[in-house]
Amino acid sequence: MNYGIILYMLGWILKIEGIFMALPIATAVIYGELEEGLCYLGVALVCLILGFLGTMKKPKTRMFFAKEGFVSVSLGWLVLSIFGCAPFILTGEIPHFIDAMFEIVSGFTTTGSSIVPKVEDLSHATRMWRSFTHWIGGMGILVFILAVLPMAGDYNMHIMRAESPGPSVGKFVPKIGLTAKLLYIIYTGMTLVMIFLLLAGGMPLFDTLCMTFGTAGTGGFSCLNSGQADYTVYQQAVISIFMLLFGVNFNVYYLFLAKKPMDALRCEEMRGYFIIVAAAVLFITLNARESFTSLFMAVHHVLFQVASIITTTGYATVDFDKWPEFSKCILLLLMMIGACAGSTGGGMKVSRVMIAFKEAVRELGTVIHPRSVKVIKYEGKTLAQGTLRTLNSYIIVYFFLFFLSILIVSLDNYDFMTSFSAVAANFNNVGPGLSAVGPMSNYSVLSYLSKSVLIFDMLAGRLELFPVLVLFSPNTWRQQ
Amino acid sequence: MNYGIILYMLGWILKIEGIFMALPIATAVIYGELEEGLCYLGVALVCLILGFLGTMKKPKTRMFFAKEGFVSVSLGWLVLSIFGCAPFILTGEIPHFIDAMFEIVSGFTTTGSSIVPKVEDLSHATRMWRSFTHWIGGMGILVFILAVLPMAGDYNMHIMRAESPGPSVGKFVPKIGLTAKLLYIIYTGMTLVMIFLLLAGGMPLFDTLCMTFGTAGTGGFSCLNSGQADYTVYQQAVISIFMLLFGVNFNVYYLFLAKKPMDALRCEEMRGYFIIVAAAVLFITLNARESFTSLFMAVHHVLFQVASIITTTGYATVDFDKWPEFSKCILLLLMMIGACAGSTGGGMKVSRVMIAFKEAVRELGTVIHPRSVKVIKYEGKTLAQGTLRTLNSYIIVYFFLFFLSILIVSLDNYDFMTSFSAVAANFNNVGPGLSAVGPMSNYSVLSYLSKSVLIFDMLAGRLELFPVLVLFSPNTWRQQ
Repeated sequence: MNYGIILYMLGWILKIEGIFMALPIATAVIYGELEEGLCYLGVALVCLILGFLGTMKKPKTRMFFAKEGFVSVSLGWLVLSIFGCAPFILTGEIPHFIDAMFEIVSGFTTTGSSIVPKVEDLSHATRMWRSFTHWIGGMGILVFILAVLPMAGDYNMHIMRAESPGPSVGKFVPKIGLTAKLLYIIYTGMTLVMIFLLLAGGMPLFDTLCMTFGTAGTGGFSCLNSGQADYTVYQQAVISIFMLLFGVNFNVYYLFLAKKPMDALRCEEMRGYFIIVAAAVLFITLNARESFTSLFMAVHHVLFQVASIITTTGYATVDFDKWPEFSKCILLLLMMIGACAGSTGGGMKVSRVMIAFKEAVRELGTVIHPRSVKVIKYEGKTLAQGTLRTLNSYIIVYFFLFFLSILIVSLDNYDFMTSFSAVAANFNNVGPGLSAVGPMSNYSVLSYLSKSVLIFDMLAGRLELFPVLVLFSPNTWRQQ
Repeated sequence: MNYGIILYMLGWILKIEGIFMALPIATAVIYGELEEGLCYLGVALVCLILGFLGTMKKPKTRMFFAKEGFVSVSLGWLVLSIFGCAPFILTGEIPHFIDAMFEIVSGFTTTGSSIVPKVEDLSHATRMWRSFTHWIGGMGILVFILAVLPMAGDYNMHIMRAESPGPSVGKFVPKIGLTAKLLYIIYTGMTLVMIFLLLAGGMPLFDTLCMTFGTAGTGGFSCLNSGQADYTVYQQAVISIFMLLFGVNFNVYYLFLAKKPMDALRCEEMRGYFIIVAAAVLFITLNARESFTSLFMAVHHVLFQVASIITTTGYATVDFDKWPEFSKCILLLLMMIGACAGSTGGGMKVSRVMIAFKEAVRELGTVIHPRSVKVIKYEGKTLAQGTLRTLNSYIIVYFFLFFLSILIVSLDNYDFMTSFSAVAANFNNVGPGLSAVGPMSNYSVLSYLSKSVLIFDMLAGRLELFPVLVLFSPNTWRQQ
């Protein structure tokens, strides 16, 4: 294990985190929150100092294998979270460490589940920081570092692979650094457009920023306790559309940028994603029609909710826990499917579900004609055997961890929907669950044991299982 | 498609079913149930006549590929069920076709879920037939035919593969016919021992037969509405032990018969199975201790319940729906895991879960050391790539069907535990679910749509997905 390079990466993460804290500090200054501002300033300075110490010495060897990539990413996210939640504890807004960790991990992993009973009790600085962590976590902090740092090329792929969602990494261009830059350019551009549209719709700047950061990262923290219910129909519609857009594979936008619109529209995953969204909206509207005053409002709110859940954002304009059981089951399924690979959304990803489905259909063919050997085509290409093997293991590990987590959370003795949906919502980085942890409720009722399990689930879900599991393998730490 | 041979197999199935109906007819004679007896006699005669017509002409070609094997088994089970439920409708005891099909499919697939509100309202003949269908379905009717019919050897393997549970078929000896004979010898022998032990414990003959058939096939129909609650501790203990024994891979018993006890005890799946049972008993006893008067009774009832659920039998001595949520979640997991491959139990099978776990661990190793290629060892042998591929597809199809079924059942708008556990209990051939379909309740409350979905699930679960799905593939019916 090359500890030097890992330490170096951790140093960079702390430096960037310190710089990012400028936003909550500025917010505190504007709203005259002196005490909170000083807390954020203090933590930011500590981050910067530790960061400079960690990056002072450039690592001797540049040996950087898959193992180091996974460990850097996992440890990086842990360090990011520990320092990120320090202001919550210092300001006394979330005094308990586990609660503070829950809140910040929920932020960085773009989950958006909260243990705060009343959001308005938090300072503006903290609310801004919570929402900003969604934006940072959405595209990935290490990808950000790749985008801004000129690093020797060959080892960066492992970081990209460990932090980017999806069964295979979408490199736009051969150079990783340039791919990372392009990703952040698209991400920032879309963020700016959304900010403009919300401001044009009359939303205050503070709300606009919080909502946009949450939408872009498909996070889900709100700056109001009422969630998104009190916004105008126009504002809700803008959020709906941008949630859906941030859930699309960014490869599609890159192809548009590269002036290949036909290739962009041919993206198999994007088509599957929009078909699922359309089907879900149709079925839920039919099933929950009676909860709404008009068909227009039904479609409006159902689309918002479907977009919010499949992209694993977790915003809510209505209390969908009151919808009929069938609609709730569809939402639970959408939580697990998740958004497209290569987007900021969570879940298993549409591509994984599609490939798994193709795999099952192929096997059915093999059962009928045992001697036929068919390859699986996806996005026009033949899938490599290795990709398929990793995907199968991913699905197996996914359900193992899923059911194990439910088992532990059920010790709190809430009803089954609570345990199941709490795990589904956090493991897939959605946010709100159903029943006792529903959209109009929060996670403060759960025990610290359950919260710790859900913190693990959020990280495992965001980093797609293996990077986090690698930390627990004795093989990883063996000196070689 | 070789329709001749399929018709021939269906004919044999009907003949055997006609002969098996002698048992309910005899029961009707003993209990003086004239009308019911005549109904069973009539159906039995129809089965025999149709059976003789179907088997009069021996098929010209003996071409019998995997496809024909799967179709024979699926259609065979459908025909078996349709004629098997005719007496329920004719006697007027279960007048609606869907209800009657639900009850008989539940019988043959050894599920044991019932739509009968009060079991004692049924005639003795019907109760005996219900329980006997468990025994018939447990080891498989086509395997029975293989055991009694001298058929040319090479195509029988496909039947065995389609009807026997598990990721790979355990042939004891090279000849399929002899393997089938040995299976039924072991099965009948253990059944007789259990009958003796229950009679020795003072259980009436009628109850003894019903209980033994249900235990041997890991079915779950009771002959009393109180389930197994009113039996003595000795009788319950005998049932507990035999449920566990019938859930063991029959390969183990064959090895004992073949005087290879050390090989038998080395069976990896059996060890895994007993470790899971022991762990479940320990955790549930700790969690639900307060529901019982003494530690002895706690262990006694928890062991009974764990044995009943993991072997997918579905008997109940206590209302486990009242246990804490953690205990119920363990039971839900046991339902999905199921018993050993090559036993009469249902579920995914311990071997599949173990192999999947090994696969996931291997992948974790590959993530750390991408260039290492490790094989998976199971039961001392290297697993073939094909077995692994089929297993992965099995798991994917399993969860697809599982969640799709929950979605449809949730249209009935019962709570999530009801929908989830109804599907889990029927798909894995367990029987009772939880909440509205709990052990002290029944499935009569559900809609006909839900019942139809559960009928499909029971068949798909018992025949392990692919044989049933093959029926829906247009490829299967294309003339070649």
